[in-house]
Amino acid sequence: MEKPTLPKGTRDFGPVQMSKRQFIMDAIRKVFQKYGFLPVETPAMENLSTLTGKYGDEGDQLLFKILNSGDFFKDVDASNSDALSSKYLASQISEKGLRYDLTVPFARYVVMNRGEITFPFKRYQIQPVWRADRPQKGRYREFYQCDADVVGTNSLICEAEIILMINEVFKGLNITDYTIKINHRSILSGLAELSNAKEKESSLFVAIDKLDKIGEEKVKDELRGKDFDEASLKAVFDILNFKGTTPQKVDFLISKFSLSETGKKGIADLKEVLALLKTYGSSQNQVEFDIALARGLSYYTGCIFEVKINNVSIGSVSGGGRYDNLTKAFGDKENLSGVGFSFGVDRIYDAMEELKLFPPDAQISSKVLVCYFDEESKRYGLTVLQKLREKGIASEIYPDLKKIDKQLDYANKKMIPYTIVIGSNEVKSGVLAFKNMKKGEQQSLTLEAILEQF
Amino acid sequence: MEKPTLPKGTRDFGPVQMSKRQFIMDAIRKVFQKYGFLPVETPAMENLSTLTGKYGDEGDQLLFKILNSGDFFKDVDASNSDALSSKYLASQISEKGLRYDLTVPFARYVVMNRGEITFPFKRYQIQPVWRADRPQKGRYREFYQCDADVVGTNSLICEAEIILMINEVFKGLNITDYTIKINHRSILSGLAELSNAKEKESSLFVAIDKLDKIGEEKVKDELRGKDFDEASLKAVFDILNFKGTTPQKVDFLISKFSLSETGKKGIADLKEVLALLKTYGSSQNQVEFDIALARGLSYYTGCIFEVKINNVSIGSVSGGGRYDNLTKAFGDKENLSGVGFSFGVDRIYDAMEELKLFPPDAQISSKVLVCYFDEESKRYGLTVLQKLREKGIASEIYPDLKKIDKQLDYANKKMIPYTIVIGSNEVKSGVLAFKNMKKGEQQSLTLEAILEQF
Repeated sequence: MEKPTLPKGTRDFGPVQMSKRQFIMDAIRKVFQKYGFLPVETPAMENLSTLTGKYGDEGDQLLFKILNSGDFFKDVDASNSDALSSKYLASQISEKGLRYDLTVPFARYVVMNRGEITFPFKRYQIQPVWRADRPQKGRYREFYQCDADVVGTNSLICEAEIILMINEVFKGLNITDYTIKINHRSILSGLAELSNAKEKESSLFVAIDKLDKIGEEKVKDELRGKDFDEASLKAVFDILNFKGTTPQKVDFLISKFSLSETGKKGIADLKEVLALLKTYGSSQNQVEFDIALARGLSYYTGCIFEVKINNVSIGSVSGGGRYDNLTKAFGDKENLSGVGFSFGVDRIYDAMEELKLFPPDAQISSKVLVCYFDEESKRYGLTVLQKLREKGIASEIYPDLKKIDKQLDYANKKMIPYTIVIGSNEVKSGVLAFKNMKKGEQQSLTLEAILEQF
Repeated sequence: MEKPTLPKGTRDFGPVQMSKRQFIMDAIRKVFQKYGFLPVETPAMENLSTLTGKYGDEGDQLLFKILNSGDFFKDVDASNSDALSSKYLASQISEKGLRYDLTVPFARYVVMNRGEITFPFKRYQIQPVWRADRPQKGRYREFYQCDADVVGTNSLICEAEIILMINEVFKGLNITDYTIKINHRSILSGLAELSNAKEKESSLFVAIDKLDKIGEEKVKDELRGKDFDEASLKAVFDILNFKGTTPQKVDFLISKFSLSETGKKGIADLKEVLALLKTYGSSQNQVEFDIALARGLSYYTGCIFEVKINNVSIGSVSGGGRYDNLTKAFGDKENLSGVGFSFGVDRIYDAMEELKLFPPDAQISSKVLVCYFDEESKRYGLTVLQKLREKGIASEIYPDLKKIDKQLDYANKKMIPYTIVIGSNEVKSGVLAFKNMKKGEQQSLTLEAILEQF
């Protein structure tokens, strides 16, 4: 029999990794709840009609589809075998797919539960998503997202609080060197207006989004291919290349946008978010207004965010923005404005490993291992164990009568910090050998004295 | 556009349900960790070669299969369209399936990571599983399992601790009236020997497993269909129908099993587990030795468990047992004995709802909502909010300037217990209106005095 394997791009998480992952997720969850967000979960499977058409053509390609149950091929017309293609068949034999992100299922949830929801609705959601992407470093086919969204208000307090939450999560994780890039879709639209590209703005955004990766010349080439003339390109890059502090950039754009109402709106929102942060008394050291930040996803309509941890070889670890029309995709007639952001646990994990930021006590383990020399001390050990647990101390007993070295070795390998070793003397006297495994120090103490140490 | 729907048998969990679900899972996780179990997670998708053949034919039918990505039909030979069937096609176009339980992926994990694991290995795992079952009350296509297993030891301490953990979890959930049924596969094998059905024991177990649901006569009919004669049936039911306390049942079986080594082994194990429980000082009031407990899954080889909450219309909420050969299914040569059990969160949830056992403070919500009358008090409110959060108090501000009634209504609907209402007087004096929403009582307090109340 062959050794079993894992599907490509998926991973097991053993105890050491799980402890660290839970450390990250607990830090995020704690902040979400502190800011008034409530948990929601949606199923792993969604109807394909819910998922398709929401993530662009490329996204549709990357959906994992689930084969219908039972005799799925029964009603497929296979008489003309030439007509049988993957695309046709997929539509006939698969109705469900795996969740691709948490935003679309959330929009679907809001539309389905509209009558019961109290708006503004602040929800968080921490669940895995699946994408049939080509696996590579930092890119997996199953990964966790941690999303927080507010829908039913266009208050910019929500945008400001997203920045506060990012700061607070990173503080909890001891991540100090990071940049929160912020921009506004209306500023990008203003930019499109200035360069006479109002009708081609999505091509413009897609190209600008790649500036980081492919550089100015290739972006220009791509835009020339989309019929942007040199004057337009100059107008675009005069603005994108402007260097300065955030206030300087704001002033510069105000002067440029004197004729663009859209551009003005973007700048006004941005200024308001920064003013709100000041009112909160929040440091803005990490916030950087980046006119070239575009974000790929097409549903954003207002402020957009992206967070990078500096000096690590990992892309953005968080991002988000305001969207005005997401529930419309599910037939919602009323305009429900929302704003949200997402933390990528897997990337934060990789960055924290690279920066060695996990505290040693992030490790989940028993605090005490009870060891013993013989059957009688084992029985006595069970009563000791029970008392430890009654005090709420995570503890365990080595289950088999083995040499004491083997038992202590188990404690070391499992990073259990203390052991209690019991032999016939200990059973008689009630004075136990209590050992600090890290320091190698051993004390002779009654169980009561040991319990007091915790 | 049609209103979106959920796939059959799947559910969304809104904030109220999520709070209760997290209450259950936290209680379980806490006990698992207290008993020295460490977290592991495996991917939602497994190779079908890992899953198939492990759950019986019926289980194989219920696996959700995932369509291969890309042009999955490209290499399928469709020239003979008569040969195209669901079964043939499935094998050609699908390589992965969704996790059906947590035990098989865990066995796969142990075999793949054998070199790095410290045995005995105590792991817990809390994740959803998927089954293409016909949905009905209490049966879903996506549901959570919470498993704890120890592999690499045959110590009966593990069996005893499973009972301790069930008691402790239920205590944490305030569930008092429940029964932990225990039996041993060797006792069932002894029963088969006594009734001359050694070679047909799996038919016997499958039939006995249904006794609860279909009754004695139908079980007998089924066994007659499997060539059991009346003498055998009498031998079986003489034992199954024996009434008495656990010690009486044990004594009765000892007398019956004088010629069955297998039966003796089962009784000896069971007696040892009960003796261990006594040593731990654990109450055995909830433990019931049930000779007719068989458990459907075929991989059990030792003690088996099943837990029912009494006086609710819900089947078993937990079950498990010892298995000796699970890793062999993945080509493991060495015998790795394991024992584990699983809590079903969804059923515990339903039972707790039925018994009204959820405490009111299981509800996750902000503690304070900051409300305001005008723009200036809103800005002031943000500084108040910041101070509350600095103290670790989960709190939020109503994001839009709306009538105060609307803001208070939001607090009520979201079960936020306190509000702080700010107008121009409050801004001037620094004395705030602090309201207990449940009691309807309002106090005028400085922010410092309010913070002290938490």
